[in-house]
Formats: sequence, C-alpha cells, structure tokens
Amino acid sequence: MTGEHPIVSRRSAPLGVFDSGLGGLTVVRALRKRLPGESIVYLGDTARVPYGTRSSDTVVKYALACAKVLIDRGVKAIVVACNTVSAVALDILRVELDLPVLGVIEPGARAAASAADGEVIGVLGTTGTIASGAYPRAVAAASTRAEVVGQAAPLLVPLVEEGWIDGEVPRLAVSRYLEPLLRRGAKVIVLGCTHYPLLHDVIEREAERLAGRRVRIIDSAAATAEAVAAFLRERGVASEAFPPGELHLLVTDLPQSFSDVARRFLGETVPAVTQIDL
Amino acid sequence: MTGEHPIVSRRSAPLGVFDSGLGGLTVVRALRKRLPGESIVYLGDTARVPYGTRSSDTVVKYALACAKVLIDRGVKAIVVACNTVSAVALDILRVELDLPVLGVIEPGARAAASAADGEVIGVLGTTGTIASGAYPRAVAAASTRAEVVGQAAPLLVPLVEEGWIDGEVPRLAVSRYLEPLLRRGAKVIVLGCTHYPLLHDVIEREAERLAGRRVRIIDSAAATAEAVAAFLRERGVASEAFPPGELHLLVTDLPQSFSDVARRFLGETVPAVTQIDL
Repeated sequence: MTGEHPIVSRRSAPLGVFDSGLGGLTVVRALRKRLPGESIVYLGDTARVPYGTRSSDTVVKYALACAKVLIDRGVKAIVVACNTVSAVALDILRVELDLPVLGVIEPGARAAASAADGEVIGVLGTTGTIASGAYPRAVAAASTRAEVVGQAAPLLVPLVEEGWIDGEVPRLAVSRYLEPLLRRGAKVIVLGCTHYPLLHDVIEREAERLAGRRVRIIDSAAATAEAVAAFLRERGVASEAFPPGELHLLVTDLPQSFSDVARRFLGETVPAVTQIDL
Repeated sequence: MTGEHPIVSRRSAPLGVFDSGLGGLTVVRALRKRLPGESIVYLGDTARVPYGTRSSDTVVKYALACAKVLIDRGVKAIVVACNTVSAVALDILRVELDLPVLGVIEPGARAAASAADGEVIGVLGTTGTIASGAYPRAVAAASTRAEVVGQAAPLLVPLVEEGWIDGEVPRLAVSRYLEPLLRRGAKVIVLGCTHYPLLHDVIEREAERLAGRRVRIIDSAAATAEAVAAFLRERGVASEAFPPGELHLLVTDLPQSFSDVARRFLGETVPAVTQIDL
C-alpha cells in the first residue's frame, strides 16, 4: 500500500461533496443518477453563501475549512461542487489535502471543447468564476482549437433561489446575459454555475431564439458525474454496494424554506439535515 | 457624569454605522446630507453579506462583532444601517453594548404610520426582515390604527448590485412584489431594505401604475437620518465642527468592482477603504 493514500482504498467510504450553499445539490443529483451505489456526505456552507462575489483569499480559506469537515467524516475523495471554488482554489486544495479532489470546471470544459469542435464556446458563470479565467484555461488544456468567451450572470443565482425559473423575468435576464455570447458567435453554452441547470430550458430556448439556430447547452453537473465515475473506476475504489447509497446533508446555517430550495436542486425528498459550525 | 456613558459626551467623536454589505451606504448618504458636520466610520461586512437569508442566531453573532469594531474606533453612537439586523438583533445589541444604538426600522415605521393615517402600509424587505415581523411591531408601537402587510422581495438586492435599476427586468420584478401589497389596499409602501432607495423611482412608478392612484413611498434611510439628528440634538452630542465631517470605510472583504457599487449607494466619490478581519 506504500505510496497510496489508505483512504482511497476504501471502496465503501462515502464521496464528500461541498459547495458554498445548496446549488451543489445539482451535482449530487447527477452523481446519484450516474453512481447510485455511492454514499455521499454533502456540506453546504449556507452561513457564508455566496462565495461568487468574494476575494480569492477568502474563498481558499472557506474551501479548506469545508474540505476538513468532509475529511473528518472519512470520505474517499472530494468533489468540489462549486464553480467559484473550482475556479480559484482547486490547485491549492490538491496541494494541501491528502486525498483526491475533483472539480466541476475541467469536466465541463472538456465536454464543451468536444461539443464545440473548434467553434466558439460561451460560458455563463458568477462574477468570480468568469473573472478567474478558469474556463478558458481548462478549455485550452482540452483543445487547442476552441475559443472561449465568458459572461458574468450574477442575477441567475437569486432567480433560481427565488424559484423564478420560468416566465418573463428569467427569460429577459437570461437573454440579456446570452446576447453578448451569441454576438461573439458562441455555438455551445456552458452552464458554469451549479444553480444554472434549473434554468436549462429557459437558457436553451432563449439561446436558440436569439441565435436562430441550434445551440448546444453543456451541463457541468452531468459532465462532473461522468468524470467522477471514470475516476472511481480507474482507481478501483467504486462502491460495490447495491443501490441506493446513503445521503447525508450538512449545512452551516439553516436558511428559511431550506427543504423547498434543497428539493428543487436535489430533485428528490431531502433527508435529515445536520447543522454544524465551521 | 454618573449614570451617563462618557463616550456619549464626546461631541467630536464619529458616528459608527454598519451593515452586512454596502447597502447601508444609502443611510450614510442620508446622514451626510442631514448632518454634514458629523464624521462617520462605516463598516460593511462584505465577507459575510448577505445577512437577509441567515438565521437569527447567526445575525446576532455577526452584528455584535461589527459593533465591537466600531466601539474600538471610539464612536459616540451606533447606527445599524441594515434592516435585517435592526429586525432581529437590535434589542440584544442595546442590552449588550454600552452606548446608544439606533436602527432603521423604528424611524421608517413611524414615518409610515404618520403618512398612512390609518390606511394600510405595505412593506418590501428581505426574507429575514419580513419573517421577523419587526415592521408590524414597530408600526403598532407608533400607531394603534395602522394595518401592515409585508412582502419578501429577495431579487431586489441582486438587481441593485447588478446595476439593473431601470428597464424591463426591475420593472417586472418590482411589480410582481408590489402586486400582493396593493391588492391588500396598501396606500403607503415602505422601502424596508437599504438597497431599495436605488429602485425608488421604479417602485413608485409601478405602484401608481398598478394601483391607478397616488402611492406614498417611505425611504427608511431618510427617516433614520432624521431620527439620528433628533437623538444627537436631545443628548447634546451633535458635532460642533464645520462641515464636512470625515468618512472612513471599513470592509471585511474587498469585492470586485467595489468602487462602482459603493459610489452608486453613497452618491459621492468613495474615499480610501480599509480591509479588516472579523
């Protein structure tokens, strides 16, 4: 076993997933669909959400604290289900932590590069994710031919949290954010924030209406679940249990109407939730 | 001097003002207009904004930490320029702290009760402010005749921070939030969040369009400045300096495009800002 971290060899250990809030539950939803036998411990840092407008130093500090909670719970790997953290803190987490850390940006960027086939890729994300340049870097690592344009879309997270995912307000906000991307010729749009899958249909419809042609939408949650499945298979640490794996939710604050919001992201009834201090 | 806190007697000491973020700068703007000779130390807890979705315990903990920073800077009184903190933590701050603490809700509620003259008062606020019931309580203390209806309007803060303060998206969002208040017969609308003064014109226009009559809009920032002026006069601790008073800004995180957002709230060029840890 020398040279291999002992935690990694525990097939039955849970996956650890964290996010600044509840948006990362869209990644949990994709993971449970793709890997139904895996148990998951999810930590939502709801006391300090959102990270998207914070400085890099602050995001790194918060992310390390979240990861440590999951490590204390014996997880075999950590999935950073937050584009902002994946954008600004993934390298530091990989250096500092003694277990595998997977983000949401690399899988989304690879899927986008493959779908774009040399054409322009548009990315919607929080201010922090777009400013970080993480998507252009990750796409460049996956393909030498793709051009990436980014658009910060700060209103989309509050729209999703408010539950306004169809109707005029999200349609107008989405089209205002899409317009500059499509004007630059984007053929593929990456949903670069874990909240955005709930706006998938509005984004697809508006993109095709504005562009007058087919626009491919890349959901980084689904791409991440695929990458996690490949990782567990390659390392030989996939769960051998029969489905369904367990799901434990930890939060740092219990926001109002928690269950409604969480169920919207998770797509299933929310299990008991534990509030912890960070 | 027995029985009177010595800090209170210092006319030349600054006023301390804090908020979860930068929205409280609309209160600073109103204070500087009403009390140009007063110096102000403002603390925006930008690393932990927004408070509006957090639990009461968390808000109290954060508010005490903010107040202590201001006390260490020698302020003569504290203005809580945040409706959420005023709603859930003002009583505790008054018990715990050894100097005068003024909030934004009492002055706004008094102005609304006076303007409503027995008719229905509608309040727009964050989820936390509305759920707290602080406005109905404060209005009841000011008038036995007024009825208060509240509406949580979580999208308005991000709209203001994004700078979308006119056009279709704010118009539709505002009218969706106003509609239930006007259906209940509101003749007066209170802007129950320090971000909302920037949407004053949209709110007034939409309210009058939907109601088909004049609707009075109460800006709690202006009402608070009036209450602070009265307090300083009554206690004999108003500054005797000639204008203009100094303005010091402290923040706990330096968000992207800080100056643009801060200038929008403050209505003047933003002075040097100091980042501190809490």
